[in-house]
Amino acid sequence: MAVTPGAGADGGPAGEGERSPAAVAAAMYERDHSSRHLGIEVVGVGEGSACVTMSVRPEMVNGLGVCHGGYLFTLADTAMAYASNSRDDVAFAVAAQIDFLRPARAGDVLTAEAVERAGQGRTALTDVEVRTGDGTVVAVFRGRTRTTGRPVVDM
Amino acid sequence: MAVTPGAGADGGPAGEGERSPAAVAAAMYERDHSSRHLGIEVVGVGEGSACVTMSVRPEMVNGLGVCHGGYLFTLADTAMAYASNSRDDVAFAVAAQIDFLRPARAGDVLTAEAVERAGQGRTALTDVEVRTGDGTVVAVFRGRTRTTGRPVVDM
Amino acid sequence: MAVTPGAGADGGPAGEGERSPAAVAAAMYERDHSSRHLGIEVVGVGEGSACVTMSVRPEMVNGLGVCHGGYLFTLADTAMAYASNSRDDVAFAVAAQIDFLRPARAGDVLTAEAVERAGQGRTALTDVEVRTGDGTVVAVFRGRTRTTGRPVVDM
Amino acid sequence: MAVTPGAGADGGPAGEGERSPAAVAAAMYERDHSSRHLGIEVVGVGEGSACVTMSVRPEMVNGLGVCHGGYLFTLADTAMAYASNSRDDVAFAVAAQIDFLRPARAGDVLTAEAVERAGQGRTALTDVEVRTGDGTVVAVFRGRTRTTGRPVVDM
Repeated sequence: MAVTPGAGADGGPAGEGERSPAAVAAAMYERDHSSRHLGIEVVGVGEGSACVTMSVRPEMVNGLGVCHGGYLFTLADTAMAYASNSRDDVAFAVAAQIDFLRPARAGDVLTAEAVERAGQGRTALTDVEVRTGDGTVVAVFRGRTRTTGRPVVDM
Repeated sequence: MAVTPGAGADGGPAGEGERSPAAVAAAMYERDHSSRHLGIEVVGVGEGSACVTMSVRPEMVNGLGVCHGGYLFTLADTAMAYASNSRDDVAFAVAAQIDFLRPARAGDVLTAEAVERAGQGRTALTDVEVRTGDGTVVAVFRGRTRTTGRPVVDM
Repeated sequence: MAVTPGAGADGGPAGEGERSPAAVAAAMYERDHSSRHLGIEVVGVGEGSACVTMSVRPEMVNGLGVCHGGYLFTLADTAMAYASNSRDDVAFAVAAQIDFLRPARAGDVLTAEAVERAGQGRTALTDVEVRTGDGTVVAVFRGRTRTTGRPVVDM
Repeated sequence: MAVTPGAGADGGPAGEGERSPAAVAAAMYERDHSSRHLGIEVVGVGEGSACVTMSVRPEMVNGLGVCHGGYLFTLADTAMAYASNSRDDVAFAVAAQIDFLRPARAGDVLTAEAVERAGQGRTALTDVEVRTGDGTVVAVFRGRTRTTGRPVVDM
């Protein structure tokens, strides 16, 4: 399992009857075919935050010789998903914007860190930065999610 | 090859020494590992326009049971790439925004149609709509590209 | 009043007990200090659509000698407001993106046309184009609104 | 003049033949009819950063009884303009996105803080937060600018 045991430490201890962010992430990850298929790992989760990683594989390179922006978006969107579902309330992405700052290349190990802030009503905004191993920011992402009131773990 | 023979017909006949949109798309597609890997097909290209398709595979489903938004973005971004490179001038995506309107599910055959409009200087904006087989719009996408002045085919 | 008598013609006849788009727009406009102050006029409204105009005044010019982008945004946002409230259900803007394609200058008479499409639940997306008198598109805008279930006219 | 004398202190001392961020801001502000007209004041500038304020006037209230989002955008866009021109290289906004988190009301004194980060080539991204007097974030803004290579002060 790619969700590390102490991944939820940032979120503090979960109360009785509540799932910790790490428990929620583990439940999500088990059903998350797309992340597992892409080799995305969840390396940290807290309440409203998440950190995920992915290696750029040769099949992620586009016709211009660099990592397809779609994979950078997918990684950022995944980080947002784990952050926005961390309170065990299913949240869907409704919109997102990404700005590509530098190209990423095959072999790069990318890290995406997501931090959520409350929006109006059931909505939240999440900012994500995608970096290469040396800390270079290759993309910034801002997404909007909406919670449903249903728990992730019983979904 | 997924680029159909008459795909460039919309772009009109290419002049001597110029590559038709279809020829450019074919050259791109040959090197486009990510599109081939995802089963994306280029079913039409013209000057500043492109239409691509993709089936939602089981491994594209996320932890919430629907097609990961990252794949909808990737499909739209790919349509933009073929539209914005169609004049044989390498163009990179610099930013994009996507709004998710409806979920897509495993088995859906998605179509993304991209239409470009000129922006300032070397930039262009491209609007893309992603639809399921019955015509339902599942996502709308607006991206910004920037040309480099280098030909696609000699890249 | 800047809302022309036949402005709601596109929306078809309103049923008994329902307000036509033109009646809703007239009620909004009366309270719309910002539009009146800026000289914005509502020249057409239908169900989910609106067209507004504004002249670029000298005090709208920024430190770079062109119309401040904020006024282009304001005009587009106003068009969206009249389109998204046209069904007599108060809608608020929750987000918007604007791309500036050409500068506008003092004296230009700008027109913004808004067309709404349904989103998820209570949300809608509205596309707006802002043009100068000769038809040049100076900005494109895409906004997201959310309805409240409250009528505009009794607000 | 609304640009305070020490406003450029953050940017460090300007070299010979270079204009400090504060000197650039002062030159911009003198020609910035729109900001002066709206009562926007530049309360701080540094290299790639700026802080501006504005009071919500009655004429900024829209048909829904709250501050028109266009003015929140204008304030944020103005903060970006002062940040992105601070190196005495004229920069234009090419695109921007705003998310409205809370309404602002007549009488609110709003502050917008802009921080720029380098993008590709001549482009930069600027994040702006708009807050009311009690620190509540009412809107977040992300814009894209492009420099021209021309000095602001000789424009």
